[in-house]
Amino acid sequence: MADAEGLTDRGLNAVLGVEWVEVTATRVVAHLTIDERHLQPYGIVHGGVYCAVAESAASLGAHLNGVQHDPENGAVGLENHTTFLRAVGAGSEITFEATPLHAGRRTQAWQVTIRDEKGRDVAASRVRLLILRPDSV
Amino acid sequence: MADAEGLTDRGLNAVLGVEWVEVTATRVVAHLTIDERHLQPYGIVHGGVYCAVAESAASLGAHLNGVQHDPENGAVGLENHTTFLRAVGAGSEITFEATPLHAGRRTQAWQVTIRDEKGRDVAASRVRLLILRPDSV
Amino acid sequence: MADAEGLTDRGLNAVLGVEWVEVTATRVVAHLTIDERHLQPYGIVHGGVYCAVAESAASLGAHLNGVQHDPENGAVGLENHTTFLRAVGAGSEITFEATPLHAGRRTQAWQVTIRDEKGRDVAASRVRLLILRPDSV
Amino acid sequence: MADAEGLTDRGLNAVLGVEWVEVTATRVVAHLTIDERHLQPYGIVHGGVYCAVAESAASLGAHLNGVQHDPENGAVGLENHTTFLRAVGAGSEITFEATPLHAGRRTQAWQVTIRDEKGRDVAASRVRLLILRPDSV
Repeated sequence: MADAEGLTDRGLNAVLGVEWVEVTATRVVAHLTIDERHLQPYGIVHGGVYCAVAESAASLGAHLNGVQHDPENGAVGLENHTTFLRAVGAGSEITFEATPLHAGRRTQAWQVTIRDEKGRDVAASRVRLLILRPDSV
Repeated sequence: MADAEGLTDRGLNAVLGVEWVEVTATRVVAHLTIDERHLQPYGIVHGGVYCAVAESAASLGAHLNGVQHDPENGAVGLENHTTFLRAVGAGSEITFEATPLHAGRRTQAWQVTIRDEKGRDVAASRVRLLILRPDSV
Repeated sequence: MADAEGLTDRGLNAVLGVEWVEVTATRVVAHLTIDERHLQPYGIVHGGVYCAVAESAASLGAHLNGVQHDPENGAVGLENHTTFLRAVGAGSEITFEATPLHAGRRTQAWQVTIRDEKGRDVAASRVRLLILRPDSV
Repeated sequence: MADAEGLTDRGLNAVLGVEWVEVTATRVVAHLTIDERHLQPYGIVHGGVYCAVAESAASLGAHLNGVQHDPENGAVGLENHTTFLRAVGAGSEITFEATPLHAGRRTQAWQVTIRDEKGRDVAASRVRLLILRPDSV
């Protein structure tokens, strides 16, 4: 997973402790064990955690997908829409699975299912991305 | 800002280093100085940071707004929709301003403008929340 | 489909010519044959048509789902998020399939897949709804 | 308003009876008098009407904005996110005002405020668009 590591082991992903289970151009799976840093004041997972990891997973997949067309390509997020479905707390094991709804040359749309260790949907995201060199948004 | 502090100094908000500039039932302003922990792999702000702080700001405002109707009320996020407009990097000073589009008794909708130190829009969020006691989503 | 007909044969649904293929509390399928009234100026399907039929399908399903808990219940839309994936024109046969991501007592979230006659995704929606009597939003 | 008319007097816009009050590259205002064709089964405005007119207004503005850069440009919608705030019925006079949050060369993001004759927010939209020749999505 050399490519993925270069893209995933720094910044916000490192802060949140995201573990990458599978990283390909058509499927990205990430895992998070919920602890204090992921919580909002009521002691449940902060919605922003779902948004952030979904964004990471979709961006990583779109990047890998985009470089198939041109090795210079990058993917930048345009829109992130995340739906919150169930409140869970510390100790939960959350799995994010991102797959492309549409993988075009100019834009991609990825959907991300987000489930706890019991397989229950806790959130769901859709991320729209523009395929570009990263400095030309 | 006693109420606000109880709601803001732990968990993800602490991890991200969010500073609260103004916290009322009709306006919440937060500030973030961008450093390594806020970045994605290309060295620009991770979209999830915008989602997360917008969610925090809207939730805090909706909570304060909701307790005006009933002190037992809490606010839980239903949907977070964040639009990314401009890539900025480390050293940027980002201001989030959340105001209610609709502050009903059952649901609230807050919009969040997100600007850099030059006043440029870098992202924009809308957060929909359900007004409830936190354990009864 | 007596219940469904009472809810579907007037207003915008009639104007758009929506055909209801299956209407239950856990799955709603609608069909549309694209003609002039569904188009935008470039001659492709207007994005609002996807939003509108997705909203109808989700609302109908959420209504049927909600009345299982209380016959007085209604469902009102809070948020509609629709992603456009592929441009199609007049003569296309579009199928909308709505299923619940979450069917709670207070809110529901439905996802809607939207495909053409070749089974290609042309759009995708998510609709969040509040379960309520219709006059008490 | 010759350009605008060529883009607005057919298809779904004609079906819905949208009136164009102002159409420029930086502001589009549309008006709708609510009647039976705009309603959902409970007798209130169908959420899809808000989505659709917002999409039309944003697309029209983005088109006019995009052709400033290149007369061949078109604008195609990528995402439509509409928030519903207040239920209104037949006889309401609804005004849509679309302005750009971001008007880039590659993508644009427009926000649309939607108010009734009393100036109350009834819905709000954000539309993301790709700037392209229409046949090259």
